[in-house]
Amino acid sequence: MKPLDSTALRYDGKVLWVLDQRALPLKEAWISCESIEHMVLLIQQLSVRGAPLIGVAAALALGQFAESGASAALLRVAAIKLRNSRPTAVNLMYAIDRLLGNMADIPKTAEKIFEEDVELCKQIANHGAALIESGDSLLTHCNAGSLATAGVGTALGIIHKAFIQGKKIHVYVDETRPLWQGARLTTWELAKWGIPHTLICDNMAASLMREGKIEKVFVGADRISLSGDFANKIGTYSVAVNCHFHKIPFYVAAPSTTIDFECLNGASIPIEMRAKTEVLGYGSEMWSSPKTDAHNPAFDITPGSLVTKFILDRGMFSPTELTKARS
Amino acid sequence: MKPLDSTALRYDGKVLWVLDQRALPLKEAWISCESIEHMVLLIQQLSVRGAPLIGVAAALALGQFAESGASAALLRVAAIKLRNSRPTAVNLMYAIDRLLGNMADIPKTAEKIFEEDVELCKQIANHGAALIESGDSLLTHCNAGSLATAGVGTALGIIHKAFIQGKKIHVYVDETRPLWQGARLTTWELAKWGIPHTLICDNMAASLMREGKIEKVFVGADRISLSGDFANKIGTYSVAVNCHFHKIPFYVAAPSTTIDFECLNGASIPIEMRAKTEVLGYGSEMWSSPKTDAHNPAFDITPGSLVTKFILDRGMFSPTELTKARS
Repeated sequence: MKPLDSTALRYDGKVLWVLDQRALPLKEAWISCESIEHMVLLIQQLSVRGAPLIGVAAALALGQFAESGASAALLRVAAIKLRNSRPTAVNLMYAIDRLLGNMADIPKTAEKIFEEDVELCKQIANHGAALIESGDSLLTHCNAGSLATAGVGTALGIIHKAFIQGKKIHVYVDETRPLWQGARLTTWELAKWGIPHTLICDNMAASLMREGKIEKVFVGADRISLSGDFANKIGTYSVAVNCHFHKIPFYVAAPSTTIDFECLNGASIPIEMRAKTEVLGYGSEMWSSPKTDAHNPAFDITPGSLVTKFILDRGMFSPTELTKARS
Repeated sequence: MKPLDSTALRYDGKVLWVLDQRALPLKEAWISCESIEHMVLLIQQLSVRGAPLIGVAAALALGQFAESGASAALLRVAAIKLRNSRPTAVNLMYAIDRLLGNMADIPKTAEKIFEEDVELCKQIANHGAALIESGDSLLTHCNAGSLATAGVGTALGIIHKAFIQGKKIHVYVDETRPLWQGARLTTWELAKWGIPHTLICDNMAASLMREGKIEKVFVGADRISLSGDFANKIGTYSVAVNCHFHKIPFYVAAPSTTIDFECLNGASIPIEMRAKTEVLGYGSEMWSSPKTDAHNPAFDITPGSLVTKFILDRGMFSPTELTKARS
């Protein structure tokens, strides 16, 4: 594969590097990916995260393995391991299945998946930025930026585009418990870009809405069903309900690779359950007794009825017309 | 004053002790209160917290100061310092004004405020427990238990009462960002009482509601206006909106000392803004850059229209009939 470069993922022609997203924003550390098993671990421990980026990273890992001369049998085993690393984001399954569909050309297809993801982000940003007016205050949940894709991002790519168009905007960032993707990653991206922003606890968004301080909400997605029900980071559903109550537009930005055309509705999207330790403390600090029982779903399902529009690379779609998004 | 004893506050006849709620649940440490200024600090740093408990603790501190032979002039200065220690909870203002109303008898009135609070909790618990059925799963936000009052608590007192009545219940506990009163304090109380419970991040409550896993919600209050709009820990409003959307009863439990009969509606309740550092990290761990701007209101306002019933010591009241709660 030729050298490829993005905010969170790099291939230098020899080594595949991932930016350790667990260490952000306090440390920018790159990890060299040593094997398929290593990439599985990097995905599971969230050093690499974000639905589109997981798909691209897994593709490059398999591409590199193919270039090393791995047999078709070994490549198939590796593909299954990567495919099973996390259950909810469908971009991963889509990327792996596409690579397996042309076993002779895995490295070239992996390159293509990377480059297409960059392009998909640009198209999403172009469509979505038109919705943002100068003076808008926006809210986003989790991280759907250049750390979640090979390109500029989905929800955050739209916000970035509006900003470089010269629109005056302010972004409220949900901290996104339990793993702080908003507090750690989205604030890091917005600060780098110079976009004015304010971090809030997830439970503060509703009162900001009531005070009229949020005009529009943009979030990403991990899997979109044909009915418009979609999975995204835990807490997205609460934001959507609050948008509905306060009559605030709620936009979902994603590449069309996030639509699962086999999936009729939200009930058939598998939700990853993670360790309770993620809820009980952080790093060396614990705020709850280790004996405490905690619930920790990584995602929730938001029904399509609460979505104002899906902003896809192919344009904007109502939740009821997603079947038209098929190429 | 005679010796007085509660979960979080003790007077042994000589020394006034407060349980350091900042150290819970990992450490149970008692702090001896050395002066009025010390009590102000203990309240501001949240070693003593919970609307009713703040009022009782301030009353005992002033009672002790009166017993030490402080002059009326010094008592008045001390009263103002205590009254201004936190702006939102009205029980504090109510207690101080009551003590100043009878300058000759401050210690005796302080004792009375303590003992009445215990009694108010019992009455609230009796009224509220009747609403809980065996098999119910409940949700609570923040801590409104024996750590927030001199008695068994308000919202949590109701849950405790239902449990000792033999009802099979399960309690979901909102962790309550940014200061983890749910994760640290409510789980500690429920574990002590042996009540089955599960800790969740605040942003998980909505999806549990959608899954039909929450039957009823009980929260406390820091100040209730005559219109039924009330202030409570930040995040309460989002819970109320989600209850409304999911048609789940939303109950607010408080002593009638939490009603501000001077306050017509939520717009005139002052909301305390706290340091952004509470949002950016915890203890020795930081998850955001110290340069990040963060919003940190300690409370939010929930409109009376979202309240199913107020459960007061004097009985249950609709949000529109709170004026009848006046004694």
